[in-house]
Parts: sequence; structure tokens; C-alpha cells
Amino acid sequence: MTETSVATTETTPKTPETTTTTTAAEENVENGHGEAEATNGSAEIKEESPKEEVKEDPPKEMKSVVLLSFGGYKGVKVLKKPEPTPQNGEVLIRVRSCGLNFQDLVTRLGAIDSPPKTPTILGFECAGEIEAVGEEVEGLRVGDRVVALPEFRAWAELCVVPAKYVYKLPDDISFSDAAAMAMNYLVAYIIVFDLLSLRPGKSVLLHSAAGGVGLAITQLIRTFEGIKLYGVCSKGKHVEVNDGRFDELIDRSDYVNEIRKISPEGVDIVLDCLCGEDCNRGYGLLKPMGKYVLYGSSNVVTGETKSFFSVARSWWQVDKVSPIKLFDENKTFTGFNLRHFLYQQNGADYCRTVIENVFKLYSEGKIKPVIDSVWAFEDVTDAMQKMHDRKNIGKIILDPAAEPKPKPATPAKTKVKKDKKEKVQSPTNEEEKKVDDTAAAAKETEQNGDSKETIEKPTENGSGDKVEENGKEEIKST
Amino acid sequence: MTETSVATTETTPKTPETTTTTTAAEENVENGHGEAEATNGSAEIKEESPKEEVKEDPPKEMKSVVLLSFGGYKGVKVLKKPEPTPQNGEVLIRVRSCGLNFQDLVTRLGAIDSPPKTPTILGFECAGEIEAVGEEVEGLRVGDRVVALPEFRAWAELCVVPAKYVYKLPDDISFSDAAAMAMNYLVAYIIVFDLLSLRPGKSVLLHSAAGGVGLAITQLIRTFEGIKLYGVCSKGKHVEVNDGRFDELIDRSDYVNEIRKISPEGVDIVLDCLCGEDCNRGYGLLKPMGKYVLYGSSNVVTGETKSFFSVARSWWQVDKVSPIKLFDENKTFTGFNLRHFLYQQNGADYCRTVIENVFKLYSEGKIKPVIDSVWAFEDVTDAMQKMHDRKNIGKIILDPAAEPKPKPATPAKTKVKKDKKEKVQSPTNEEEKKVDDTAAAAKETEQNGDSKETIEKPTENGSGDKVEENGKEEIKST
Repeated sequence: MTETSVATTETTPKTPETTTTTTAAEENVENGHGEAEATNGSAEIKEESPKEEVKEDPPKEMKSVVLLSFGGYKGVKVLKKPEPTPQNGEVLIRVRSCGLNFQDLVTRLGAIDSPPKTPTILGFECAGEIEAVGEEVEGLRVGDRVVALPEFRAWAELCVVPAKYVYKLPDDISFSDAAAMAMNYLVAYIIVFDLLSLRPGKSVLLHSAAGGVGLAITQLIRTFEGIKLYGVCSKGKHVEVNDGRFDELIDRSDYVNEIRKISPEGVDIVLDCLCGEDCNRGYGLLKPMGKYVLYGSSNVVTGETKSFFSVARSWWQVDKVSPIKLFDENKTFTGFNLRHFLYQQNGADYCRTVIENVFKLYSEGKIKPVIDSVWAFEDVTDAMQKMHDRKNIGKIILDPAAEPKPKPATPAKTKVKKDKKEKVQSPTNEEEKKVDDTAAAAKETEQNGDSKETIEKPTENGSGDKVEENGKEEIKST
Repeated sequence: MTETSVATTETTPKTPETTTTTTAAEENVENGHGEAEATNGSAEIKEESPKEEVKEDPPKEMKSVVLLSFGGYKGVKVLKKPEPTPQNGEVLIRVRSCGLNFQDLVTRLGAIDSPPKTPTILGFECAGEIEAVGEEVEGLRVGDRVVALPEFRAWAELCVVPAKYVYKLPDDISFSDAAAMAMNYLVAYIIVFDLLSLRPGKSVLLHSAAGGVGLAITQLIRTFEGIKLYGVCSKGKHVEVNDGRFDELIDRSDYVNEIRKISPEGVDIVLDCLCGEDCNRGYGLLKPMGKYVLYGSSNVVTGETKSFFSVARSWWQVDKVSPIKLFDENKTFTGFNLRHFLYQQNGADYCRTVIENVFKLYSEGKIKPVIDSVWAFEDVTDAMQKMHDRKNIGKIILDPAAEPKPKPATPAKTKVKKDKKEKVQSPTNEEEKKVDDTAAAAKETEQNGDSKETIEKPTENGSGDKVEENGKEEIKST
């Protein structure tokens, strides 16, 4: 079950221009959708790798992960793009480490609200050094080590970001830890310190407990005394995840009954990043004076491509809440959407304060991000699939300088089926299979199974063993 | 505008048996409704006072405020009732001071959920000395000074209360301060310390800011630095209420526009005890990351009698909230209903902790209840009317030992009309007038105007002057 990860040391970044995996023709496609249709669905990025070519005069180009069209993985390509230049109020960052977040999957599907125009460079989170500073930027200088939360365009060798979304790194925080922390701990900190009123004796039900945000929330909750923490995640992760972190770990498939067995009267707090039917289930588990925090809607992602049914269901299924009912039942319902807060609701200043507090907790040794694995840009769709399958424990990191993983010549079909059985499917995912909107989508998912197989059993990656150890160590050290 | 109040000193309680205002016949009425119909609507309690009689052998009777039937004031009578005896887990309290709360008005109307059977002794709050202790009571002894929050039956010379709702008083807290604090500061404390996450820079819109709970919340909020507090109450109270308490005081009639003028982007927190249409208005005023706390539904009380329209409107008008909308807008909706929490949801232990914290804040001089006025049991309907008209500033107290106010022999009809004009009517109240369900109700309200006139301009009440001074002093001292 443990994944092999690719370790990269930040002290030896590769010259970005040397590893490119695309063709000149792909760069100039205006309409992402058109391009995607012209491409054979099964032509994954990795299969294009053999066509690798070294350009002769691209002094102003950089490697980036581009979304050409919304939908499946075929719309995601590693392409060379012109190097950006910072404008007023912006800085240019030489990217050393990027964070993969669930909202990248939602963006790829096109299920995100106010989606970007395609083609666009993906990514909300990167860490690196400042390489250039635009006019009217205060407090940031060339050479500064920073982490940034741009709205898109983070997954590239170079990234331009408005200074208000750029945070200086203390010396003791590595780029990968920074990329692993910024978004996840920002969400976790606001939830734990601003939205909850934790007191000894309170009980918390935490969904997606083994994910990046889940583990961040767990660490922050553990800075309080006397909290009962019930984590929900796939059964397969229980042994590895629970190292004193949780009072109970509960399988996703039947968590309502499991909670009722442990605590018949329910829980004081539900932290939900799933949405959909789980909203109603979780609300029903709240004790009087209980609080429901909805901070994500990962249930909209049920297949590789956008399914009308999955999106519609995850929203329609949510019962509206009557204020009178909240009054009668003494309950609180909170929505928290970091993306809206940060980019649309003027939350940048406050988020800066939070990030500074997070760094302080890190320096005090109170928190430490758990990194699941590190991937090359070229392997980003495999990384996405791993997150989609909820197989990660902690944060998934992309490294622009990392080497793509070697692919086996002929993936074994029989093994794929075995792998599928092993997958811990949520009930939602299983339902989704029955109603997925197109046969094509189903086919695509199956093809994706192939490539996943090549990822989940990598062998001769030089740094694999080392990082597997590291990963475990990090999990246990927290 | 200032009301004359009746001061009572707790050191000289009257013998309860001496002041009774009822007839033996009234005691034995089983069906409150029937009794009320048989009574002439204009027969106010006070007019029965001349019939006062001293019973010869009622060694086991006590004076109490009884609700004979739901509806208008005519269902409220001061009656002699048999002295109760504490059962297992209960204590008997010799009552010295009682609190009037808005839920007493809601109870009288029959608009409260799970209403009591009539006839019943009214009241949720009293302070006094323990006179007897039942079996299986720990930590309470005869002679202890206490405040209690029974579910009904508090407004009597003697009151039996389950020990879990009884709180020992520190020596420095008088019975009237205790009765003024218990319910109001319990609500206020839970709202301010548990439900809000106050930080410097946050702005709060507080409805019914001059009421008992409103002023309690205000004092508790002022224990935090840097909070902008906008209070909403009738314009007529602004000068008297605002003694550095509020950053702005806003009239009820157009608070949405007033807030928009002061703070175009809205407020961080809305504290609403009105419900109804005000829920939707207030929710619209919330900033991103804002929090709405609904902790009362006083809009259900729009006339003296229960109006189907007012109750229905105040509930139907409230838009249901979509969790998705809360997620998109980064908002929180909280319901807080102390009555449900305390009596139905096992909240007694927690409330005890809160009450202890409140007493501590009192002893530290950080809070001091504002008492609007003190009334005799016999004047309870006038006290209710004052609260209904939202003319009180701070808590209204009932004192079982207080003398009823003298009534003028012939109320001047012309003066009544003048008085009505002076009343600061909320828009809701005015609307209500147009749709009130019965002409009878309208007539009753007018009659009530008469008696109010007698109350609002009392003259020769011995202790009146003294207390008016006290009242002002208390308001300004906080």
C-alpha cells in the first residue's frame, strides 16, 4: 500500500531547459478543447516522452503543466511556455516545489466555479526563490526564499505571482515542506483556530483524515488538550496513519454507524471536505451545540472526467438548512472556501497573518507536514490519480526538477484488475460507476488504470527506497 | 422616558402570606381557558386589588403568578397556591427576586414550543434562600443564597427547583443582581465566548441592544479589545443607552441602510434575537467569514395576544440556507436556544460552569447587570407590556415582596392617546396592527394602554425617586 516517492534535493536543481516533453505545435493551440479532440485519448503524456527533443534556441522558455481542455487527463500536458515577466505588484519565482491540491482535480474537470480559460498553466501552490521583482513591490527581494499561492500558474519552472500571495520562508523551512504546508495549514489553521471553539471534552469527526489538510488539522487539533478526534479514511490506511494521532480511525464505508457505536450521542464537531450526501449524514451526527464545517466538495470528483450526475448529485443532495432548525437544535453550520476568501473576498492580509502563525508553529516544532510523495511534472496525472483514488497519506508534491518515473514496456492487464480490487472505493465512487454519464469516461478510467499500475509498482527508481523511508519517518515523527 | 422603579431591600422581606390578591374560587379552576372566558376582559388584576382579603388559615399557601390560559394579559393572575414540597433531587427556594424574560411573553401567548399545561405558575428565573432540601441533593443546604433557572414556576414566594438548575451565589451578589444576571449573562456568555471568535477589528451588529441580554452581551464584548459594536434599538433609548458602550447606535426602523452607511462592506457578526424577516436582512449584511447568531425569536410577539399571522410570518419569512451558499460565501449560521439546551439537551452541567464564570466576572468588577425596574407580582402584566413595547433598558425584575403601584382612580383617556404617540413603535409592530387577527385583541391592547399609563407616570411611590437614581447610576457605572 505504501507508495514509492521520488526524492529531490533542493540544493541541486536541474537546468529547467533540459527536460521538455512536448512539441512546438502543441504550444500554439488556442482552443484547448479542439486540441484535445484531435489527440488520441490513450496518448498519455508519458508515451510522448520518447519524442523528447532538445530545442536549439529557447532561451526564454520554461517547462510547465498546462491544461489544454477540461475533462480527463488527456487535457493535461507538460509544455514549454514563454517565460513570464512580473508586472507591477508581482514577483517572478524560480519554482523548486509545488503542491497538488484537490482543487487542481476539480479545476481539470472544469467543475470549479469561475474556471480559467484554457489553455492555462495549472497549480495554486509553489515554493522557490524570487528571481525578479516588479514595480511597487515592498518587502520582497531577488533571492528571497518564498512560498506562494497564486490563482493558477504555479506548476511551472517560473511563476509570476501578485506579491500579496507571496510569503517569505524562514530559513528552517525547506521548499518541499513549504509547498506541503502553505495551502493545507492555511485551511487547517483557520478551521481549527478561528472557526472552532475547542475545549477539553469536545469530540471531532474529521473526514479525509489522511489527506494533506486532514493531517494538518490533526496536528493543529493536537495542540489542544482533551479533544476526542475520530478520523475517517479508507481502511487500508488505518495502520499507517494512526500513530497516536486519532482516538479512533473509522472506515469511510459506514462511518455513521461506527460513530454511533463509539459515541451514541454523536459528536461536537464535523469537519467535512466531501459535501453531497455526507453533509446530511454528518449534520445528523451533531450533538446539541455542535458545529458543522463544510470546507470542500471533493464528492464532485467521482471519475476521471466531469460527470454531470456526480456534480449535480453532490450539490442537490445537500439539504438546505432552516435557521429555525439550527435555533431549535442548537447547531452551527459553517462554510469555508479558502479560494473564494483569498482571491475574491479580500482575505489576503488575514491569510498572511495565518501563514506567519503556521511558520511559527513549525519553527517551534509543533507541526510538521506529512509528505506522501514527490513527482515530476511529467507524472502529474499519475499524482492526480493517486489523490483521486484517495491513496495518498499527506501531501503530494510536484518537483519541476524531478526525473519522470521509468515506465514498464508492457503493462500487465491481469494485474490491473487485481489492483482495482485492492482499491478502497467509497460508496459514492461505486454508485458513480453505475451512473457515469458516458461510456467513454468509463473507458478512459480503465485506461487510466493501466498507467496507475505502472506508477504504483515502480521498481528501479534510484531514490525510491530512500524516500519511502523518509515518508514513513515523517509520518511517525509528528 | 426613564421609568420609575420600585426599590426593595432584601434585608426586610415581607411575610408572604399578608399580600394576596385573589379569590379561593380562582385557585381551583382546572381549565384556564374556561376561566379566562368567564372573566370580563377589562377586569385587570389591579382592579381586583381592593378586594384584598387576609385568609385566616392558609399556613401552607404562597402567592404566585399563574397563567390560567394562553393569550392576553387577562390569563395572568396573582393567586395563592399550595406551598410546594421538594422531591428527590430538588430544593425549595424562598424567592426574593425574579427575572422577567422575553420567553415569558412567548409562553403567555402560547407561542412557545412544548408549552406547559395551564394553569401553571409562570417564570424561569428566581433568586432567594434555600428553605428546604429534598433527598439526594448534594452541595446545597438550607440557608444557602442561590439563583435558579427552573423551567416555569419561578414567580412565586416559594419555588421548587431541580438542584441541577440551582446556582449558589457569592456573598457579593444581591438577589436582584442575581436574578438580573443568571439567564441574560448565561445567554450572553455562551454567545460571546463560545460561539464567536472575537478578534481585534471585528464588527458586531447587535439587535435589541438595550435589553437585558443586549446589555449583557455588550459588557462581555467590551472585555475584548478593538471590537466595533453597532447596537440596534429604538431611537428614544439612544441617549440613555449609549454611554461609551457602542461605537454606533442605530434605530431599528432602517438599520440595514444605516449599517451600509457606516460600513459599506457589512459586518463580521450579527447577533439576532428577532428572527423573521430580520434573519434575511441580517444575513445579507454579513461580510465574508461572517457569522450569524440567531438566539431568539421575539418577532413572534407582535401583539398582546397570539397572532397566527405574526407567528407564521416570523417563521415562514426566514429563508432556508443552503450549505453550498455558506461554503461559497464563507459564512456561518448559528442557532442558540438556551431553553432547549438547558432543559432538553442535557446542557445543565455546562451552564453551571458558565454561571460560575459569570459570577467571577461580576466579582472582578468586569460586568454589572443593568436593572431597568422592579415590579410587584401584581403589576406583572404592566412589566410584560413594557418589555413588549421594548421600553426597558436592561433587566425587568419582579419582587414578591414589593407593593403594587397605586393606580389613579380615573385614567384620563386623552392622556392615553398622547402616551401612545410617544411610544416608539417598531415597523413590525405597526405592520402587525394592520393584520392582527382579532378585533378583540386590538381592543384589549387599548385597554392595556390605560393601565400602562398608570404605570408609566407613577408619582407618589415612596421608593420611586430613589430607584430612578439607582437605575441611572447602574447604567452609567458599566
